[in-house]
Amino acid sequence: MIIVMRVGSPEEEIVRVSQEFKDWGLAPEKIVGKHKVVIGLVGDTAALDPLQIQEVSPWIETVLRVEKPFKRASLEYRHGEYSEVAVSTPEGFVTFGRNHPVVLVAGPCSVENEQMIVETAKRVKAAGAHFLRGGAYKPRTSPYAFQGHGESALGLLAAAREASGLGIITEVMDAADLEKIAEVADVIQVGARNMQNFSLLKKVGAQNKPVLLKRGMSATIDEWLMAAEYVLAAGNQNVILCERGIRTFDSQYTRNTLDLSVLAVLQTLTHLPVMIDPSHGTGRAEYVPTMAKAALAGGADSLMIEVHPNPAKALSDGPQSLTPERFERLVQELAVVGKAVGRWSQVAAALA
Amino acid sequence: MIIVMRVGSPEEEIVRVSQEFKDWGLAPEKIVGKHKVVIGLVGDTAALDPLQIQEVSPWIETVLRVEKPFKRASLEYRHGEYSEVAVSTPEGFVTFGRNHPVVLVAGPCSVENEQMIVETAKRVKAAGAHFLRGGAYKPRTSPYAFQGHGESALGLLAAAREASGLGIITEVMDAADLEKIAEVADVIQVGARNMQNFSLLKKVGAQNKPVLLKRGMSATIDEWLMAAEYVLAAGNQNVILCERGIRTFDSQYTRNTLDLSVLAVLQTLTHLPVMIDPSHGTGRAEYVPTMAKAALAGGADSLMIEVHPNPAKALSDGPQSLTPERFERLVQELAVVGKAVGRWSQVAAALA
Amino acid sequence: MIIVMRVGSPEEEIVRVSQEFKDWGLAPEKIVGKHKVVIGLVGDTAALDPLQIQEVSPWIETVLRVEKPFKRASLEYRHGEYSEVAVSTPEGFVTFGRNHPVVLVAGPCSVENEQMIVETAKRVKAAGAHFLRGGAYKPRTSPYAFQGHGESALGLLAAAREASGLGIITEVMDAADLEKIAEVADVIQVGARNMQNFSLLKKVGAQNKPVLLKRGMSATIDEWLMAAEYVLAAGNQNVILCERGIRTFDSQYTRNTLDLSVLAVLQTLTHLPVMIDPSHGTGRAEYVPTMAKAALAGGADSLMIEVHPNPAKALSDGPQSLTPERFERLVQELAVVGKAVGRWSQVAAALA
Amino acid sequence: MIIVMRVGSPEEEIVRVSQEFKDWGLAPEKIVGKHKVVIGLVGDTAALDPLQIQEVSPWIETVLRVEKPFKRASLEYRHGEYSEVAVSTPEGFVTFGRNHPVVLVAGPCSVENEQMIVETAKRVKAAGAHFLRGGAYKPRTSPYAFQGHGESALGLLAAAREASGLGIITEVMDAADLEKIAEVADVIQVGARNMQNFSLLKKVGAQNKPVLLKRGMSATIDEWLMAAEYVLAAGNQNVILCERGIRTFDSQYTRNTLDLSVLAVLQTLTHLPVMIDPSHGTGRAEYVPTMAKAALAGGADSLMIEVHPNPAKALSDGPQSLTPERFERLVQELAVVGKAVGRWSQVAAALA
Repeated sequence: MIIVMRVGSPEEEIVRVSQEFKDWGLAPEKIVGKHKVVIGLVGDTAALDPLQIQEVSPWIETVLRVEKPFKRASLEYRHGEYSEVAVSTPEGFVTFGRNHPVVLVAGPCSVENEQMIVETAKRVKAAGAHFLRGGAYKPRTSPYAFQGHGESALGLLAAAREASGLGIITEVMDAADLEKIAEVADVIQVGARNMQNFSLLKKVGAQNKPVLLKRGMSATIDEWLMAAEYVLAAGNQNVILCERGIRTFDSQYTRNTLDLSVLAVLQTLTHLPVMIDPSHGTGRAEYVPTMAKAALAGGADSLMIEVHPNPAKALSDGPQSLTPERFERLVQELAVVGKAVGRWSQVAAALA
Repeated sequence: MIIVMRVGSPEEEIVRVSQEFKDWGLAPEKIVGKHKVVIGLVGDTAALDPLQIQEVSPWIETVLRVEKPFKRASLEYRHGEYSEVAVSTPEGFVTFGRNHPVVLVAGPCSVENEQMIVETAKRVKAAGAHFLRGGAYKPRTSPYAFQGHGESALGLLAAAREASGLGIITEVMDAADLEKIAEVADVIQVGARNMQNFSLLKKVGAQNKPVLLKRGMSATIDEWLMAAEYVLAAGNQNVILCERGIRTFDSQYTRNTLDLSVLAVLQTLTHLPVMIDPSHGTGRAEYVPTMAKAALAGGADSLMIEVHPNPAKALSDGPQSLTPERFERLVQELAVVGKAVGRWSQVAAALA
Repeated sequence: MIIVMRVGSPEEEIVRVSQEFKDWGLAPEKIVGKHKVVIGLVGDTAALDPLQIQEVSPWIETVLRVEKPFKRASLEYRHGEYSEVAVSTPEGFVTFGRNHPVVLVAGPCSVENEQMIVETAKRVKAAGAHFLRGGAYKPRTSPYAFQGHGESALGLLAAAREASGLGIITEVMDAADLEKIAEVADVIQVGARNMQNFSLLKKVGAQNKPVLLKRGMSATIDEWLMAAEYVLAAGNQNVILCERGIRTFDSQYTRNTLDLSVLAVLQTLTHLPVMIDPSHGTGRAEYVPTMAKAALAGGADSLMIEVHPNPAKALSDGPQSLTPERFERLVQELAVVGKAVGRWSQVAAALA
Repeated sequence: MIIVMRVGSPEEEIVRVSQEFKDWGLAPEKIVGKHKVVIGLVGDTAALDPLQIQEVSPWIETVLRVEKPFKRASLEYRHGEYSEVAVSTPEGFVTFGRNHPVVLVAGPCSVENEQMIVETAKRVKAAGAHFLRGGAYKPRTSPYAFQGHGESALGLLAAAREASGLGIITEVMDAADLEKIAEVADVIQVGARNMQNFSLLKKVGAQNKPVLLKRGMSATIDEWLMAAEYVLAAGNQNVILCERGIRTFDSQYTRNTLDLSVLAVLQTLTHLPVMIDPSHGTGRAEYVPTMAKAALAGGADSLMIEVHPNPAKALSDGPQSLTPERFERLVQELAVVGKAVGRWSQVAAALA
């Protein structure tokens, strides 16, 4: 931690402040600049809150954090080695990670009925997907909008899993549903709106299934990694990060702004695998293929694509869904890029 | 709903789309423009999702909502009459509303110990506050930071309530704690990070205590009112909205950007009372008085101010807290503005 | 400047880096932390660019600026004394500054014809305004929209000045027009879109008329003050800052988000007077009175209000204009707040 | 244009409003909804400003634009055919466009001296670049920072052009310099800070050299295309759009947020070619290769990459520059992606 004192801070106050930090068990080192005095705090400062330090004296102007606030999520924590999140599916383990082929996740926004979800599962499986996504519990802006079929949809996801051999990714909104969801899901998703629902993060961290953590709509990279830190600190080491678009000043054409720069940034900060969701990230099916290809060339470890057998009839998020035919074509386009950058699996390649 | 068809949409598609809407029980009306065809949908469209409509045809370019998405939260719902939220406190009812004096809420970010919370309560009461705020459960970015004293802090709030006669406002983060909190709190706060935790909104809507709903860090006005709609639709009519700063491109000097324009906007949209929190909204105690006065002159129904007996020792959010002395002085400054704009209570005025 | 070295930086690199800074004439001081080494640079660092420093070594992780980047604009530069910008008008000097009554600027977005501008000038003068605003050259998003009457409008402003006795504030968009504008204007406005048109800033800094510098739509406080610094450094000490709304994620109800928190922040950073423009800041006339009152209570040194004799016929920005009648009523409302906070002039008070 | 009337609008007002639009030469069509009346305006509405319409009556709630505000920049204007911008260089024409190989632009932020710029030009040419970028006039946040060598740097760019055979791209900040710049530059750049400097746009539109129009830091897609419209409407049809990062709530790790989604959006809206600048877009050299590859796979027509022979000594923007060696390696990596997506030139391919 670096403490910048205001211009004109009295010497006795600097002495007092330094003594206070010594009392906290830290070693303060003073640098006298041309106009200002700066105090460097040496010692175990990771747990300190800059805001708390600032209040030690009204003469403190700013407190600058030198250490990153996250530990277990940091790349240093694993000495520069990227994590592999191996997820059990009916057809064996599928691994998310930097040294593995890109993992394809596809499926509808919400589970509507058995025929629909089973058919979609088979179609996306045939096209090359590894996981089926589908919402049983849906976060909706309006209390009057369709909220998902809930528990009964979980049964349909189980049926689709069995029929297709795909792993299942579905969202938890309420900790009270966690146990039921974990019985069916291979990966449990925490949605963007709950990224800082710390009670929920602690609870998904205390169970065994891998966790897919979507980035909050206006979450900084640091806040996102700190949310992952909640899960890791609670004991669950299998966390996948998912970028799904952030909120900016322009929402005329895209619902959100898909922030692909996280691909460059996260690989310098964290060992956790990164998924990109261009469907929510743009909100329009016609933009999805372009962004999916860009994400793959930029090093995404996984892609999540909304696919619906009949987008016109989708109960939620229709306009951002691809038809199964368009998804098949997209996988072929992705295969070309994926092979070029060395992130395409033999098996998927065979299918594509 | 207004549907804009793309340039060059085939006539038969426009016929087909119109028929589909008729099948939904709506009356489509067509306007043929110079370049584009527009279809107006007449009927009960409030429950429709623009995204869903868009998927009826790939020839649909945009869907524009004409009706506001919120109903119970709208000013029209109460025929232009503003709500009064009367809250029971040890010393009688205190009412939040446009035709009432401004309600002052003060207290520390988190409850630290009995002496501290009781002393603060007495001090802010003496200065003119009507409610004590204080966190038992604290949402913290880091899992390693102080998370609040939890259940034991609830007991301390009860003690402070009894000792001071103030009403109590405290935050719920986990629905599992709701019952315990409701035993102590006079108003239950839903924090910014949980503004779209829809499970929690339904549960606070299903109990009786008034709800203070903080605006999410990047929540639009519409999303905020829709979050209130969740509570109202679940049966709880006593909702107070609280602006606490939004996220913008600049966080060099203020932690958030306090959006006082909600004062002008909300009074044209909703009947619900509006509180302003300049402490979280700026993140620095020295900015609080200026923003509090501006908020009061702009028509705020309530102000929430962080006060801590010794900000330098605060376990959380110290730098944004005022000392009790500074709070007393602020109340005097507020009294001058409040009297000028006719929003100051006789009683508080007497004290100030 | 504080330089944070990456974890694991080789000792010889730290020595080399330190030597390089010594070669620059600076005194580097090293603090060895638990994980990282930090170097404090003592000496004349204000002119240094953090980005440039970062490139001295790939082992440098971050460079943190301790000094503010602005000098002449800073409050320290005037030893804590606020500036007074005295502007000559036909009826004597009007002074913008913290220890002076609020200055009212009113008028239409653009000058349409002689009758309109003269009538508006007389009306707003009678109501209590000190300056007339009116655009001769208008920045418009579309090349097909009305661009202002240009030079001929300058003559009309001169006529309105003479007829009413008001000072004139008008915008320069092109340095080539500066001389002509300076013949008529008492204050020259640089618009939000040109806030970082550095060529223009240098040129308005090199002439004598006071400059009104609007904040760019996404300009940080630091960038805004650095733009003022361009004018000050070029020799013109009479700069007034004007907040007119920033761009955020929500533009559903307000065109921009009026950032009143600058009132609190700027008074700790700069000696320059601050004007608030609630008309552009919200984009809707019905929101203007609320925000104007809030700004005044928050310490604004001046208010700029759009007034149009017939907003329905305005050639630009109609919906954000008040009628002269509504402006008169607003001045009366402002007088109540202004007297309470001690920022209302005897003369204006007499009129109101 | 669609006009939404407020709930409860009097019938006579609707008649009056409709009559007013008829007087303007438009055909209003009324749709009576369940709660609201909507008026569709048929006729030549492109030149109308929604804000102006809104002022026709206080009973108008919203005005929704159905037509896009841009004409010449729209894809429809060229009947769905993408533009080709062919630029003359010493070694013949290089064409920017959707059906052409990606065009590589490389070079330093600013021109420092002859040896440096000539050497850089030769190095990036050898690596596969088609254009040299280099600033003679530099927009700098601080008046005290290096502002570019100006006119003398233009001579050095001419020398580098001759020595390397590369085309030259350089920025104009002041219309007064336009003629001199046009003598040397093959493409004239308008920077992000001047994107809405409408005087400058008109002047670059009135000369012959192709124009590179950078997106403003918080410019919406519509505003960006309207800025291009200024150039097109002034007679210059050779406009290239360049995305260089937008301003969002997070600037901890990247200086801006590179918005690659423009690749998907712009191809549905405009015929103009699109360049991506990952160097300014991220602000850090280590992020550039990832984003450059993503941009290429996403369909960028051109890439602009900062290269400096010795980034540690760069007079501006060092940390975002690649060394010539790193640039060579990046071109090889790009070749792999470019060939896969069919956007790599034979010649460049031979070199790579």
